Amino acid sequence: MTSFEGLWADLLPIGRADSGGYRRFSWTPADTECRAWFASSAGDLGLDVETDRNGNQWAWWGTGDDAVVTGSHLDSVPDGGAFDGPLGVVSSLAAVASLRARGVVPGRPIAVVNFVEEEGARFGVPCLGSRLLTGAIAPERARDLRDADGVTWLQAMNNAKVDATELGADPERLARIGTFVELHVEQGRSLVDSGAPVGVASAIWPHGRWRFEFAGEANHAGTTRLADRRDPMLTFAQTVLAAREHAAAAGALATFGRVAVEPNGTNAIASLVRAWLDSRAPDESALRTVVEAVTAAAADRGDRDGVKVTITAESETPVVEFNADLRDSLAALIGARSTADAARSLLGGAGSDGTAPILPTGAGHDAGVLSAHVPTAMLFVRNPTGVSHAPGEYAGEDDCLAGVDALATVLEHLATR
Amino acid sequence: MTSFEGLWADLLPIGRADSGGYRRFSWTPADTECRAWFASSAGDLGLDVETDRNGNQWAWWGTGDDAVVTGSHLDSVPDGGAFDGPLGVVSSLAAVASLRARGVVPGRPIAVVNFVEEEGARFGVPCLGSRLLTGAIAPERARDLRDADGVTWLQAMNNAKVDATELGADPERLARIGTFVELHVEQGRSLVDSGAPVGVASAIWPHGRWRFEFAGEANHAGTTRLADRRDPMLTFAQTVLAAREHAAAAGALATFGRVAVEPNGTNAIASLVRAWLDSRAPDESALRTVVEAVTAAAADRGDRDGVKVTITAESETPVVEFNADLRDSLAALIGARSTADAARSLLGGAGSDGTAPILPTGAGHDAGVLSAHVPTAMLFVRNPTGVSHAPGEYAGEDDCLAGVDALATVLEHLATR
Repeated sequence: MTSFEGLWADLLPIGRADSGGYRRFSWTPADTECRAWFASSAGDLGLDVETDRNGNQWAWWGTGDDAVVTGSHLDSVPDGGAFDGPLGVVSSLAAVASLRARGVVPGRPIAVVNFVEEEGARFGVPCLGSRLLTGAIAPERARDLRDADGVTWLQAMNNAKVDATELGADPERLARIGTFVELHVEQGRSLVDSGAPVGVASAIWPHGRWRFEFAGEANHAGTTRLADRRDPMLTFAQTVLAAREHAAAAGALATFGRVAVEPNGTNAIASLVRAWLDSRAPDESALRTVVEAVTAAAADRGDRDGVKVTITAESETPVVEFNADLRDSLAALIGARSTADAARSLLGGAGSDGTAPILPTGAGHDAGVLSAHVPTAMLFVRNPTGVSHAPGEYAGEDDCLAGVDALATVLEHLATR
Repeated sequence: MTSFEGLWADLLPIGRADSGGYRRFSWTPADTECRAWFASSAGDLGLDVETDRNGNQWAWWGTGDDAVVTGSHLDSVPDGGAFDGPLGVVSSLAAVASLRARGVVPGRPIAVVNFVEEEGARFGVPCLGSRLLTGAIAPERARDLRDADGVTWLQAMNNAKVDATELGADPERLARIGTFVELHVEQGRSLVDSGAPVGVASAIWPHGRWRFEFAGEANHAGTTRLADRRDPMLTFAQTVLAAREHAAAAGALATFGRVAVEPNGTNAIASLVRAWLDSRAPDESALRTVVEAVTAAAADRGDRDGVKVTITAESETPVVEFNADLRDSLAALIGARSTADAARSLLGGAGSDGTAPILPTGAGHDAGVLSAHVPTAMLFVRNPTGVSHAPGEYAGEDDCLAGVDALATVLEHLATR
């Protein structure tokens, strides 16, 4: 099946959890099944499928340099939605199918890519596949990243029978990419407000993840006097509230969504609370302000509780401003096409000036990593509820098809100009 | 080996975790190994070992009614210490060995018991074995209790090949117990302050466990505006701080030591935080005050966060005042023996009035459950650091031997009077 609907329907059941969300973690059986789906679907389209030295999958239409590359990722957060990642991959394959069906003969090679471990859900570092490709992370560090069970990235790749002997930067491959375009479901409601099904990204907010370790002392919850306690749950709790307060003050975002407690017994004071801060802001100064304020609040309360606080930056990503010329030309191209469609369908679509909406995002993407090396753009597809990273994440079928159409238009424009 | 040292050394390695603490959870292989140790050690002493309808193990010296029963439990909290539970079981067997070696002929039967699931670490309800025996919990409820993996109590007993066909109250067995005495490591530092190696319990504080469910909405941590969030981590954090504050105000204890977050992803706002409140107080009115104040604080903050808070009492145990006559006679008996020892050894031991110290405890025990039905006493052995429910839990060898001696004296007194 090479239609959007057929591709989508084939992928949909893989890795679905009882929650209705997805658990497609890198190198797990669900991921292997997703990868087989990618290879088989791309093969059905007549594309040449290969796996690079870092495990990313590529499907080529044509050979040579200055390629127009599109794609996204298939891994998910725990109980994530069906769209974050897969919508980009499925739309890329469907756009290629559409170009083929229309008899387009590209003047530049076109490739569809499936980047591994974009979410960082299993090994903690997001965009790991694109970071390895571009040399943004050292292969020695990536190789030894461990999942919650202590399995390393290297072991996981080996277990999944994917060659991991040449992990690391791939400058020849990177040099072949002339332009990168990633389509993604919007993770907010800007397009709902603008009335357009497809928008173009302006920038990715700077963001990062910090691991907080609150180390106290385990003891009996029923017999240890309050004054004798070193209870890290108190320090953690104060830090959670401080993060919210300082993010609000800075117009930023700060979230503690992941927690691990030791020993985690009902009648035992915790010895250790590990918790991860995710923070993002419109600019790097605001982000720094938030993280410094949360760090100070944690240290202050830690002193009071007799709890040692250790903070480790697991990832820090500066602001990404996408290529302005590419952004503006794609917004005009998509807007013009939407306007023509709207004239036929009597439905709205583009902004009042005939260009697609341009919007920033707080979410990191492989496109953000690529943009430091090649002209890069992102397309967003409208999300009626704004829900993301949860089972309720959604995009309407008409909007998805509008996204495929916009992406096909963009690929044709770029590859035949 | 029937000496204290030999019994202790044989039991010590079973279920020890990498943390140095213990993971002896009911019906796991570690527990099965502990039970085999009990049966074999009691058998070596010439005791008749049997398992009751609820899985508790009994080792009998003599038959008939009006028995003097002693013992404790072998299960542990996660990464618990070596002493909480096992010290009582080992000391009981060693005390019986001592009486046998001295040629004591008891006028009443003596039994050593190993109660199952005292900690409630696997199935959530503490003192489950003694509650089943005494009818304090319905067998239908116990049977369906589930561990973290969804395994029921019934399945776990079946898996451990222990007969579970007649779970529930055992009035004939209960009627055979004339007196129950449990020896336990102290879970605090009162005996350190009093200078005595062994004390006698006055009361167990009323205590309970409440499961708090904070239900919000999962969403993307990088793209969801603060105003659009329903983040249960905030409500939980405020509740943790409120619990500490209200416990301090009431002279009580309140602890959140166990937390489970869904979906628990770094870049996902939590949909659900489950956390367990353990609270204890000198009297039931103070306990009620604390739990009501924490409940109100959680509900208030939940309203603000758009988070639904559901609170379920998993266990509530009223104050236990141990039998006053028994308590006083044992304190005098142990004090007199310590004073005699001290006169020989020039070391201190009993209180200045020649009786052992009498002290309350915040921890629940099978003795608390039994005390509603039969005259019951507890002996505590000095804990130099007060650490409990953690790998650092400790009692010195001389104090352990003083505990065995005190328990043997008590058993001889009760069984030959």
